[in-house]
Amino acid sequence: MNKLVQAITRRDEDFGKWYTDVCIKAELMDYSDVKGFIIYRPYGYAMWENIRNYLDKEFKRTGHENVYMPMVIPESLFQKEKDHVEGFAPEVAYLTTFSKDEEEKMIIRPTSEVLFCEHYRKIITSFRDLPKKYNQWCSVVRWEKTTRPFLRGKEFLWQEGHTIHASEKEAREETLEMLHIYENMGRKLLAIPFVTGIKTEKEKFAGAVETYSIEALMHDGKALQSGTSHYFGQNFSVPFDIKFRDSDNLDKFVYQTSWGVTTRLIGAVIMVHGDDEGLSLPPYLAPTQVVIIPIRSQDERVKKAVNEIYSKLNDKGIRVHLDDTNKSPGWKFSEYEMKGVPIRLEVGPRDLEKGVCTISIRYNREKRQIPLTELDNLDGLLHEIHEAMYNRALDHVKASTHVLTDYSKFAETIEKGGYIKMSVSLDAEEIIKEEHQASSRVILDEPLLNEICPVTKKKATHTILFARAY
Amino acid sequence: MNKLVQAITRRDEDFGKWYTDVCIKAELMDYSDVKGFIIYRPYGYAMWENIRNYLDKEFKRTGHENVYMPMVIPESLFQKEKDHVEGFAPEVAYLTTFSKDEEEKMIIRPTSEVLFCEHYRKIITSFRDLPKKYNQWCSVVRWEKTTRPFLRGKEFLWQEGHTIHASEKEAREETLEMLHIYENMGRKLLAIPFVTGIKTEKEKFAGAVETYSIEALMHDGKALQSGTSHYFGQNFSVPFDIKFRDSDNLDKFVYQTSWGVTTRLIGAVIMVHGDDEGLSLPPYLAPTQVVIIPIRSQDERVKKAVNEIYSKLNDKGIRVHLDDTNKSPGWKFSEYEMKGVPIRLEVGPRDLEKGVCTISIRYNREKRQIPLTELDNLDGLLHEIHEAMYNRALDHVKASTHVLTDYSKFAETIEKGGYIKMSVSLDAEEIIKEEHQASSRVILDEPLLNEICPVTKKKATHTILFARAY
Repeated sequence: MNKLVQAITRRDEDFGKWYTDVCIKAELMDYSDVKGFIIYRPYGYAMWENIRNYLDKEFKRTGHENVYMPMVIPESLFQKEKDHVEGFAPEVAYLTTFSKDEEEKMIIRPTSEVLFCEHYRKIITSFRDLPKKYNQWCSVVRWEKTTRPFLRGKEFLWQEGHTIHASEKEAREETLEMLHIYENMGRKLLAIPFVTGIKTEKEKFAGAVETYSIEALMHDGKALQSGTSHYFGQNFSVPFDIKFRDSDNLDKFVYQTSWGVTTRLIGAVIMVHGDDEGLSLPPYLAPTQVVIIPIRSQDERVKKAVNEIYSKLNDKGIRVHLDDTNKSPGWKFSEYEMKGVPIRLEVGPRDLEKGVCTISIRYNREKRQIPLTELDNLDGLLHEIHEAMYNRALDHVKASTHVLTDYSKFAETIEKGGYIKMSVSLDAEEIIKEEHQASSRVILDEPLLNEICPVTKKKATHTILFARAY
Repeated sequence: MNKLVQAITRRDEDFGKWYTDVCIKAELMDYSDVKGFIIYRPYGYAMWENIRNYLDKEFKRTGHENVYMPMVIPESLFQKEKDHVEGFAPEVAYLTTFSKDEEEKMIIRPTSEVLFCEHYRKIITSFRDLPKKYNQWCSVVRWEKTTRPFLRGKEFLWQEGHTIHASEKEAREETLEMLHIYENMGRKLLAIPFVTGIKTEKEKFAGAVETYSIEALMHDGKALQSGTSHYFGQNFSVPFDIKFRDSDNLDKFVYQTSWGVTTRLIGAVIMVHGDDEGLSLPPYLAPTQVVIIPIRSQDERVKKAVNEIYSKLNDKGIRVHLDDTNKSPGWKFSEYEMKGVPIRLEVGPRDLEKGVCTISIRYNREKRQIPLTELDNLDGLLHEIHEAMYNRALDHVKASTHVLTDYSKFAETIEKGGYIKMSVSLDAEEIIKEEHQASSRVILDEPLLNEICPVTKKKATHTILFARAY
């Protein structure tokens, strides 16, 4: 083990410390001079680019268009929807100038619902103008008290989708379609099995009728809300007066949705897949999928071979990096382990004599020799790795989901980490939060486990997943 | 002519009014509730996405990496490089909160040099760490007094590249390489022939040793600075203490560059190519390259034919839109003319009987019938249109570049619009600005036209392009 690896805390020693160690040592981010604002370094930002490229394609495939709204909001506009402003008021930051042309206070966007509402009001007249399905990629500012890289920051990167529809049915379908796109991104890109469901009244978005969430389970057994899709009904369209003339010639208010994911997803990937050697990236998200490390890099045969392999993999569209710097192979091994590159390929003179190379798989640290001719199947191996990482994470969720019908077991169960599934009356939520610091994550669309709530002894009405959460 | 077209001002009547009419009617943008901030609507934002995708690929091809820096800068950090802070101070906006944890004033980024400097200082130790070539896509805020859609706004979208190098030679090469990438984008994507050169001392960037610029000539004869590439030398690395241990074991300051283009490029495209019918887009930039309009859209043969044509073009990777709404063909013609779609394809029952369709080319309003079988060559036609639009713009630049050796002709010449090329002493710049409201655009790398400056009667030292400018 070299300095790099020695330098990070073990997960079972201090998971929080391990997390920030990985963020720094894998060069995902750095702290900036303003507390709570981070610098997204190239390797971390490349992960966000891959998430963005994946989602942007999905959004466009499903008929969404990108726009860009101003980063400032007049305070009066922000105050039009009451729940919304109450939810965000404590976290608001302002833009000020020395100029005289500011007629009123301006908020730096914590989210842009009200700007979309104002714009939609202006551009909509007829049912023929509907639906409008817009999305925006930007950063937002929320003055959070405690911050943590990627998980909670005073500024973060995200996308916010905002759509308006002529009917409730269509808006509800949109809410679920976008939830499904997020869930599928977990399956296809992040190798994270998200649990999905509706949030309780207490946990829903400020201004929403219903909030759906994707929840992920971290290695330490805590849950992380990883994205949300909201059905707004007419909660915004009435105060913002977003009306259209319908085909029956009547004026009606539109039905609305919004949905978003943030750079928090990077945090989820770190805490689901990482291990004591550092980051471990699922192949389709990884900025570098394969790193080639020459052993005896001055050997002409080795030089020729690694360059050939590089070209071959690159031509196949694999994101490959050849590290032919003069650092020692051992140092390079640790570095790319820390950075979580899914496949490491070692090529030395003795390997070449036998027509083989050595492959190391990051997530399970398996090492094997393969004939050079088999490098044609490397995309198959990347797919296998993705599936295995997904299944390992799924097994963790399954093994960590505890079904309880007896509340007296809650205390010892929650200490194990993971989800606790219970059928309760809704007011059990507050009691559980207070007694165990565990919050309701989502309401599951599942039959009740029991008729009487084991917490309140009232009639059980909902089956809910509880967990301690980030 | 229908309402849409009637609604825009003619260019020769009021070019400024024509410009904003096109911005609004082509649905590129809308005004927001905060003066000086605009909403980038889907059609305008899609143009920016195409610019971004083109450049991002070029940046990555030439070894640059994307990062994201905070949107706030501590005021003390901003003040470290004196020319820099003097250049930006009047336009600065601040972030404020109700919280107690702000230790000092925070500026909302008008540009991010100082953040990159601080970060580079922290991550660089050895010559082995160099060069670092980072770029950032973001928005910046500058509190401008007068604003105009895309050309000058209180917030705009841009990319800012910031690189550090071990040697002056390498940094100077980088400055020119990026200038060349911008120039080439004009040739390949925007169909705009940029004139390139060095800015005079008076016009250069606050903090730069040298500023190179790409200048475009608008239809009305005014110039538009469309992008810049700066060589900083050690102007920032000394005050920010960005040092590295070189291979000769000595500590040295890095050499630095920065370069950027903004959404102003959208304004350049509008004013170079647009006409009295609205926007006219070069094909490789156009969000929609071909629009198909069925004549008698209820005719089953027409329906089948347009869907087949749509699929065929779409499969070829052409950005094609089929408008089968029940608006009248005439209305659609005007709409897509206003939006500047390069090729319109009309398909009616009588065309189909003859096995043809009608093609209308936006930029020269040429109309012709072509056999349906020739639709296979549509990408060839798109290329032809691009070349013709570029050449038309180039002819305009050539015809509008006036060489003067006699200053008494300046007044009448500048009224014609375009560039005036003169060999002058550098202090002529200020006189010309005061007497004719024309500024120096770039210093040309060309031999002197005369030995004595026709303005000051001193020794002529530089051949400069002058113009009135946006």
